Amino acid sequence: MTVISPSQPSAASPPTDVLPAGSVGIVSPEFIAFDEPLALAGGQVLNGYTLAVETYGELNTQRSNAVLICHALNASHHVAGIDADQPDSIGWWDNMVGPGKAVDTDRFFVIGVNNLGSCFGSTGPLSINPDTGSPWGASFPLLTVEDWVHAQARLADYFGIAKFAAVMGGSLGGMQALSWAITCPERVGDCIVVASTARLSAQNIAFNEVARRAIITDPDFRGGNYYEYGVVPTHGLSVARMVGHITYQSDEVMAEKFGRTQRAPGPDGAFHYNYDVEFEVESYLRYQGEKFSRYFDANTYLLLTRALDYFDPARDCGGDLAQALRDVQARFLVVSFTTDWRFAPEHSHELVRALLKNKREVTYAEINASHGHDAFLLGDRRYHAVVQGYYDQIAARLSLPARAHTTGVLA
Amino acid sequence: MTVISPSQPSAASPPTDVLPAGSVGIVSPEFIAFDEPLALAGGQVLNGYTLAVETYGELNTQRSNAVLICHALNASHHVAGIDADQPDSIGWWDNMVGPGKAVDTDRFFVIGVNNLGSCFGSTGPLSINPDTGSPWGASFPLLTVEDWVHAQARLADYFGIAKFAAVMGGSLGGMQALSWAITCPERVGDCIVVASTARLSAQNIAFNEVARRAIITDPDFRGGNYYEYGVVPTHGLSVARMVGHITYQSDEVMAEKFGRTQRAPGPDGAFHYNYDVEFEVESYLRYQGEKFSRYFDANTYLLLTRALDYFDPARDCGGDLAQALRDVQARFLVVSFTTDWRFAPEHSHELVRALLKNKREVTYAEINASHGHDAFLLGDRRYHAVVQGYYDQIAARLSLPARAHTTGVLA
Repeated sequence: MTVISPSQPSAASPPTDVLPAGSVGIVSPEFIAFDEPLALAGGQVLNGYTLAVETYGELNTQRSNAVLICHALNASHHVAGIDADQPDSIGWWDNMVGPGKAVDTDRFFVIGVNNLGSCFGSTGPLSINPDTGSPWGASFPLLTVEDWVHAQARLADYFGIAKFAAVMGGSLGGMQALSWAITCPERVGDCIVVASTARLSAQNIAFNEVARRAIITDPDFRGGNYYEYGVVPTHGLSVARMVGHITYQSDEVMAEKFGRTQRAPGPDGAFHYNYDVEFEVESYLRYQGEKFSRYFDANTYLLLTRALDYFDPARDCGGDLAQALRDVQARFLVVSFTTDWRFAPEHSHELVRALLKNKREVTYAEINASHGHDAFLLGDRRYHAVVQGYYDQIAARLSLPARAHTTGVLA
Repeated sequence: MTVISPSQPSAASPPTDVLPAGSVGIVSPEFIAFDEPLALAGGQVLNGYTLAVETYGELNTQRSNAVLICHALNASHHVAGIDADQPDSIGWWDNMVGPGKAVDTDRFFVIGVNNLGSCFGSTGPLSINPDTGSPWGASFPLLTVEDWVHAQARLADYFGIAKFAAVMGGSLGGMQALSWAITCPERVGDCIVVASTARLSAQNIAFNEVARRAIITDPDFRGGNYYEYGVVPTHGLSVARMVGHITYQSDEVMAEKFGRTQRAPGPDGAFHYNYDVEFEVESYLRYQGEKFSRYFDANTYLLLTRALDYFDPARDCGGDLAQALRDVQARFLVVSFTTDWRFAPEHSHELVRALLKNKREVTYAEINASHGHDAFLLGDRRYHAVVQGYYDQIAARLSLPARAHTTGVLA
């Protein structure tokens, strides 16, 4: 394995007094290459791969304070701080991770890792296939959540981490955290699963399938080898993202944010009677779709949604989730949000019941929040208080230093 | 106005003993042409138009027993019975309308009408524009729900119906029924609004916008003039329909019908690790999408979804729905379904509250049904009992003959 570029803090860090309290500061990724072949669930073997990683805080001498953060569909290893190369880019969970925040980097060594198959620096369809010298494109193997765990286990080895203090994630990231606790039970102290599920419902799969059909039937997709043609299936990706965005928000919060407000109405509020933008919500969705299609790789979107569909640890146990969790050793914090209709609280209930059936130690919080699935990314005080309290317990159990100060949402 | 073809019963009718009890039998549409110009909400004028119509039962001499049935997004004037030209085609509300059924054609004269702008025989984008000799295509004017009501009012005139015993519809059809009661208050005795709303929410508009973007960005859409090129935006229409289908069903019923059942799995239930169909739900959605793209006109889909978006009778009253309903004279039956998340019961509550504020007579039924929005098309006994009981009251009030027998769901 090879470290290609150094991690933070970079030489370009400004004086900390210009950064907000609780920021991990200016960060840069490491690209860590693994050359041992990785056998995948689908039967293929990846001869080697690179993972893009960011780390925050310091690994203690006992190597007991490591936290792995797993990302959701469209995110990356850039969990916290400001990217040295993109000053506008704040980490996707920056409100959660930092010195004095719920996941306190003064005490924990936090690792953010880009999933294998993604498009932000880890090996994926965009990468060059060393056997051909061309991008993998459609020939990149499909992956499962378990494949990600296996790939990330080598990352733990690289850092000399035998056991994580916690593995944590929201949405797809929560599925990865759960898979870590099942796949490597002795390597996970606490497992934190937020706004997630132990398996997608038919409706969840259905929305993924709509997104995939939009991408695959875009003529610019060209069977997944669009790179060769210098095109991108922009329209399909936009539609996919628009569908996704609707499922991330509650009906309630969309009503609050947009309602039926018109965008640039005619005189006296008149409609334009055409198919251009009439309502704010249309403008918002189109903007989100177009933005996404400029930075996200279509093959990665297919791959990640398919991994979501496949994830079902109970499948090998005749659908019995409790049986699938029988070897789990981790304690669990499970968090759901009342208005999340993508992974509604019932998904979390099922997980909690299966853990309790195995007499695992479980803390469950159902947060009465209006923001739907996206609530897991937001700064609800009750939610952050639950996570902070839980990490304080982990720290106490591991005899880490006491919390020195509180920043972020709870400051 | 001109009647182009005769209505049912057609000469091809088989002996009634082969038809199920309660069927209106073999039916054929009439195509009724109106040559008086119709001024549209969008400012354009349609010089003339044709409406495709089916009727069931007989108009009584007082012309007091007429019921107008308004259809939803993808349906037509073919409400009940078997289409003479398509023996497989049973009317979309055949379980509701027929001799002895909830809407009893032994007592009521029922009219089904295809909306202006639709693609089943009424004038729409597929029709020839008499000014150019070519299909209207993208140049067909956008319409509103109120435009439909104005077009249909002439149909009432054509039949000599001064006042409908009832105007009834589900979903978009319910919006039309409501609009009838507002636009022509003196012409609606009872208004029956099922699984509907007085205005779309931001989320509702958002789903419509996704469907439109999928269609419009399909290269085969060609700016709406695909007819000229001998193509159809099949892929876009399919994606649009797939999205729609998900919103018509509850998460619960999709879980029951499909769950995570695999379609043609490999040996030992293995996944195929590709983007072909892996799950039954994918197969179902693709089938629905493809079927729809073969029979439904893309321009019509755009037009109907836009009319849905625009519908908002409270808009001219500063958002005050009660104010918008101040002149309504009809009694109302409002029905919602607990698992309908497209037009959730809260939409009906808002309508009921606004009607009560105006001291209108309202019956409200919230049916505990698992099928989501589609429940309005299905044969739930409690639902049909409510509708049947309500129509029996209408009949009694109008001194129509008593119900002779009961067929259909409640038989």
